[in-house]
Amino acid sequence: MNTLYHYPLSPFSRKVRLSLGEKKIEVGLVEERYWEQDPDFLRRNPAAKVPVLKMGGRTMADSTAICEYLEEAHPVPALLPKDAVARYEARRLVGWFDDKFYHEVTVKLTGERVYRKVMGTGYPDSTNVKAGAKAIKYHLDYMAFLLEERRWLAGNEMTLADFSAAAQLSCLDYTSDVDWNRHEVVKDWYAKIKSRPAFRSLLADEVPGFQPSAQYADLDF
Amino acid sequence: MNTLYHYPLSPFSRKVRLSLGEKKIEVGLVEERYWEQDPDFLRRNPAAKVPVLKMGGRTMADSTAICEYLEEAHPVPALLPKDAVARYEARRLVGWFDDKFYHEVTVKLTGERVYRKVMGTGYPDSTNVKAGAKAIKYHLDYMAFLLEERRWLAGNEMTLADFSAAAQLSCLDYTSDVDWNRHEVVKDWYAKIKSRPAFRSLLADEVPGFQPSAQYADLDF
Repeated sequence: MNTLYHYPLSPFSRKVRLSLGEKKIEVGLVEERYWEQDPDFLRRNPAAKVPVLKMGGRTMADSTAICEYLEEAHPVPALLPKDAVARYEARRLVGWFDDKFYHEVTVKLTGERVYRKVMGTGYPDSTNVKAGAKAIKYHLDYMAFLLEERRWLAGNEMTLADFSAAAQLSCLDYTSDVDWNRHEVVKDWYAKIKSRPAFRSLLADEVPGFQPSAQYADLDF
Repeated sequence: MNTLYHYPLSPFSRKVRLSLGEKKIEVGLVEERYWEQDPDFLRRNPAAKVPVLKMGGRTMADSTAICEYLEEAHPVPALLPKDAVARYEARRLVGWFDDKFYHEVTVKLTGERVYRKVMGTGYPDSTNVKAGAKAIKYHLDYMAFLLEERRWLAGNEMTLADFSAAAQLSCLDYTSDVDWNRHEVVKDWYAKIKSRPAFRSLLADEVPGFQPSAQYADLDF
């Protein structure tokens, strides 16, 4: 049996869960409080981060490296386009959401509201929350700009870029930090991806002490 | 003519410069003070980061997406192995150096000493410098652990993982933050990569107001 060590509101775990789900690769989920640096877990991944995937006797870390591996070892359905330029665009946007969006928005909103309390690193810092609330508007505008011209974020096919973005936004939606009324195209895009079978397990997630927002699991939000 | 918008002590620019150099793709370098958010530059890359590569009428951003594109469009010499598991390992280490090493070490040492002053964001924070000086030891130990078993970081062939690591370490070497005597295998590895023709342009870099360390450009350090 394959195992994914994950944390429910880790966007990087979610990105890998979506890839696995879309490719119909079954995994057992093990929740890992990675910040506690359990020695067994550190042996699995010295970077001390989730996700970690155990598959076929192999232990793999780093969500981008895992997703690229899954593309190569389990190519159907493809989550990257065939053409090199289109693949570049999908990977550029994976980087955008995993790095820029994560640090500017997710860490500052879901991070301040949930990670801090769960990890015991103090109270939310209101300066960060304000900066995150401002930054998400810019990011939603950028997504709308892309989606005006394309069916999915990186082009007319669904790619890993959509999973990277949805992984981040679904964490923010859990903490009620997304204004879905800002852009109809973004809401429509999220509704499409949210209704995929691979998304179901994410919508069932719960972090004790933090209720998900009312619309979190609602496909008709 | 191809153009790379870069900043001399940006490790991500350096990673792309090494890939381009190794593949013998000629580029003109344009230094970009990306933090000043010049509107022309923002049009090239709304993420407001270097590197940005203009090549064949296309403008590309995100060092990982660029390097993957170069692998696909200019496959010789290969900077990723052929086998999917070996490719995974190279990409895991690219993630390790680009994300973990960069945030734990480069930002806290070269970042505090140089970026802060150049960007005008204040004086070095000694708590960060101390944390970076501590973290680099752990990272050098991890590199030595890998290099005891392998000729290069991800296996017996040189890959993008070596360029990611050397890009970060060369910035730290500029600011005298690497103890090359800690592990002979790490020093030998760096000497090998430093002597490649692709590395020459990095060794000629200078940031006004910051002298590189004595051994920075010395191949026999």
